[in-house]
Amino acid sequence: MKKIEDYMTSIPDYPKPGIIFRDITSVLENKDGLKLAIDEMNKLLDGVDFDLIAGAESRGFIFGAPLAYMHDKGFVPVRKKGKLPRETVEMSYDLEYGSATIEIHKDAIKPGDKVVLVDDLIATGGTIEAAAKLVEQLGGEVVKMIFLIELTDLKGRERLSKYDIASVICYEGE
Amino acid sequence: MKKIEDYMTSIPDYPKPGIIFRDITSVLENKDGLKLAIDEMNKLLDGVDFDLIAGAESRGFIFGAPLAYMHDKGFVPVRKKGKLPRETVEMSYDLEYGSATIEIHKDAIKPGDKVVLVDDLIATGGTIEAAAKLVEQLGGEVVKMIFLIELTDLKGRERLSKYDIASVICYEGE
Repeated sequence: MKKIEDYMTSIPDYPKPGIIFRDITSVLENKDGLKLAIDEMNKLLDGVDFDLIAGAESRGFIFGAPLAYMHDKGFVPVRKKGKLPRETVEMSYDLEYGSATIEIHKDAIKPGDKVVLVDDLIATGGTIEAAAKLVEQLGGEVVKMIFLIELTDLKGRERLSKYDIASVICYEGE
Repeated sequence: MKKIEDYMTSIPDYPKPGIIFRDITSVLENKDGLKLAIDEMNKLLDGVDFDLIAGAESRGFIFGAPLAYMHDKGFVPVRKKGKLPRETVEMSYDLEYGSATIEIHKDAIKPGDKVVLVDDLIATGGTIEAAAKLVEQLGGEVVKMIFLIELTDLKGRERLSKYDIASVICYEGE
């Protein structure tokens, strides 16, 4: 029985020397890989009571949308600034170089909504922390954060210690 | 029984005067809307024999990934230039102002693969035509193109008349 790791591609020195890039596209592009990845992420939702799934542009869409569909829940896209057509709330966060701003629709989350955040990978956790703050700003509750891959050395889990976090596989080293 | 149209938001004069923007995010964000949209798109695949689904960044991911999962097929992300880590093929196409370039991984499609292209909306058809050319460049065959929304006045279907196209709902007028 193959594991997710068997479908992953690790690209040394990408995007810069010393970094090992964990490429999930080779998982998606394989029918058994895609099925396994979504089924394993779905197991992380066992027993979780939630109303909505939110996923960050754009790889979070690939995992978040099937999971929302399977659980008969709505899917809230978390997008880069300027992509959503209706009234939004926005949050900026620091990147290694510079900063980024993400948005969600103001009417996508109602006070008391229980929200699961989904992304392909957690590194330092900056994007998902900003997404969580947007959910909370609208009165929602982040009941779980799930990831396919966790880069443990980057300590996203420590930064986000107030949240319930689960990931399918962990890699040490960047 | 509600229809997709009941979950859609139409925003007049966005992004510029005279345009009615058809906003699918209000469909996604509602659990019944998301389920209906994916189930209706799935019906368009009845009887279609295919190996892979390809979807364009980033709203194509939201519909393409669940459909690939449901059919036990791989999902090939069609991305804007510079986002994919391995060797790619690329195609540029004209936009109303300027141009855009999309890419897919060279090893994502093998000669003879039957590929379904999925996107949220077809307007002039420029993006999906470029995606189809990339599939063909790698020796794949585009067996179907499916969309949630078709803006009929923009004549994407005429431009792409050599392909088998289906959409869930059509709107006249931009």
